[in-house]
Amino acid sequence: MMQYFNFSAGPSTLFPEVIEQIKNDIGNWNNTHCSVFEYGHRTPEFTAFAKQMEQDLRDLLNIPDDYAVLFLHGGGRGGFDTVPLNMPQKHKKALYLISGHWSRESAKQAEKYIEVKNAAYVDDQFKRTKNDWTAESADCDYVYYCSNETIEGIETFDPPVISPNAYLVCDMSSDILSRPVDVSKFDVIYAGAQKNIGASGVAIYIVKKSLLGFAAPYCPEIFDWKINYENDSMYNTPATFSWYTCALTFQHLKKQFGNLANLEQVNINKANHFYNYLDQQDYYSNRVDPAVRSRMIVSFTTGNAELDTLFVQQAKQAGLLSLKGHRVYGGLRAAFYNAVSFEAVKALIAFMQDFAQKNPK
Amino acid sequence: MMQYFNFSAGPSTLFPEVIEQIKNDIGNWNNTHCSVFEYGHRTPEFTAFAKQMEQDLRDLLNIPDDYAVLFLHGGGRGGFDTVPLNMPQKHKKALYLISGHWSRESAKQAEKYIEVKNAAYVDDQFKRTKNDWTAESADCDYVYYCSNETIEGIETFDPPVISPNAYLVCDMSSDILSRPVDVSKFDVIYAGAQKNIGASGVAIYIVKKSLLGFAAPYCPEIFDWKINYENDSMYNTPATFSWYTCALTFQHLKKQFGNLANLEQVNINKANHFYNYLDQQDYYSNRVDPAVRSRMIVSFTTGNAELDTLFVQQAKQAGLLSLKGHRVYGGLRAAFYNAVSFEAVKALIAFMQDFAQKNPK
Repeated sequence: MMQYFNFSAGPSTLFPEVIEQIKNDIGNWNNTHCSVFEYGHRTPEFTAFAKQMEQDLRDLLNIPDDYAVLFLHGGGRGGFDTVPLNMPQKHKKALYLISGHWSRESAKQAEKYIEVKNAAYVDDQFKRTKNDWTAESADCDYVYYCSNETIEGIETFDPPVISPNAYLVCDMSSDILSRPVDVSKFDVIYAGAQKNIGASGVAIYIVKKSLLGFAAPYCPEIFDWKINYENDSMYNTPATFSWYTCALTFQHLKKQFGNLANLEQVNINKANHFYNYLDQQDYYSNRVDPAVRSRMIVSFTTGNAELDTLFVQQAKQAGLLSLKGHRVYGGLRAAFYNAVSFEAVKALIAFMQDFAQKNPK
Repeated sequence: MMQYFNFSAGPSTLFPEVIEQIKNDIGNWNNTHCSVFEYGHRTPEFTAFAKQMEQDLRDLLNIPDDYAVLFLHGGGRGGFDTVPLNMPQKHKKALYLISGHWSRESAKQAEKYIEVKNAAYVDDQFKRTKNDWTAESADCDYVYYCSNETIEGIETFDPPVISPNAYLVCDMSSDILSRPVDVSKFDVIYAGAQKNIGASGVAIYIVKKSLLGFAAPYCPEIFDWKINYENDSMYNTPATFSWYTCALTFQHLKKQFGNLANLEQVNINKANHFYNYLDQQDYYSNRVDPAVRSRMIVSFTTGNAELDTLFVQQAKQAGLLSLKGHRVYGGLRAAFYNAVSFEAVKALIAFMQDFAQKNPK
């Protein structure tokens, strides 16, 4: 039987064990005789399940007690507005560190609400410029960055150094749970689920509790962090299926890897294996400076648009799915999220070698 | 084998045929070798599927070409803010017709943005007050009502008569697709999916195209109707599993009932059967005036909180699920949405008769 490997950048592959559980639960989740998405979110069964989901995430990320954990509507892009709508605004000014497409987009949205200082965190050579932004952030309410840019394949492993006057906000949509993170260094972490966690339809917010209660008067209530905290993120009906897939993934991560340090090692091995191959050949190229190469997602290209298209087609026939680059960037792209196995990375490399041999430039 | 019937008010039961399809598709949707929620929303397979979903909804509701159809994040409650954030505001004033809990809640949210005139559409005796609001709406940008109130079980079948100067907005979250509706009488119709359509995580907006482009400057972009229209509702990653369940339901409705007039007859039969029983006994009571009794959802009570609790417990043991009233109203509640069969209604009545006999008051 042919094996299939899904490298989709999002919505993305889930662990086979999670998929198996989802299939088993259709029609009778948790002995309710209903599918989870046919069952009330305020039932004892679902609320207990949701509570355990939060606890599992807290365990995995070691989230301190003075942080709220919210599961909201709106996906990752919802956060582009939700963050400025909820952050305290003493200076009405924020520093956005631009490392690629998504941080640039989020800065653009924030400009609707506050003054935004854009600063290149990663330059046009795809190199990180600097890590200390203390001076630039002294008059800002917060500093915002995106730890992993999925379009360029750029990952920032260490949080920037900022002024003690400013809060630190991070969009971790595409590398959350891929490695341990010291949550106490951040004031807000948020992430859409559909890359490294579960089905799209939910975004996770980890917010220092002292930051609850500053929502702008025109903040839609379903995006108000305090209202959602006080209502266990059930102020409105959650996307229950999406929550459920997140919960299953958290359970699986705990069971399979124990902790994120173990999982990080697997992700390092996958990424190293791929970049080692990339560096020892010249058929495929990748622009990103090795210091900020993403472990989670790689953009690469043959340098020839027709060959790239052929690559995507033939890869699909060979069972290697969703390798087309993002529409704003083109080329090729492979996600190596948690649920993508080492075996999948090896299969991709084998295909790349074969394709290069058969299609000389 | 015991039969189970799910009367959940939302998230609610889906058609057995839809559940079967979902189960079959896990792991290999549409020959992609991925589950639908593991697959990119911008792929040819998913975009074609989404296009057909919109067409099926247009067919079912006979939506004229000058209306946009949007599938957004935020559920029904998201609409409480999305509507005032997007409606043209010449007078900065709107008339909200209050028929129960949800219209009251939506009026409260609209007050963050504009002046809101609240008018009792249904009085304290659960009777409709009047249908002609021409005078009261002459200085308003729009008139808003909720066609079905799920907590009280009140349904408004005819749209209110309003001033030609005002637009008409309707929250149809819990009775959309239960009967034919003349869309051209409305300017905006919106509905959360998780009652009469599919899994939670998506809200449907049917918006006259001339109303696109009036979003407030502080409207989150994922709620901006025009942006979403221009991007086929994929400006941000949709809750793809929720979309998929909606699409399967639309397909099923077309196949099973052909059109909404046929489906309406089934819903009338179900409701009549239940209310006929209710009217010929005095163990259970329901306050709603027969003229505005909901076909979709019934609130009733034994009049005794302990008996109501016992009823819910014993009904569950008998396979009749999710009959507890809403937390703000108490008592008992049964949804008779499209996917709830006549058989389920009969089973509920049989249980009610048995319970009344065994538990004299």
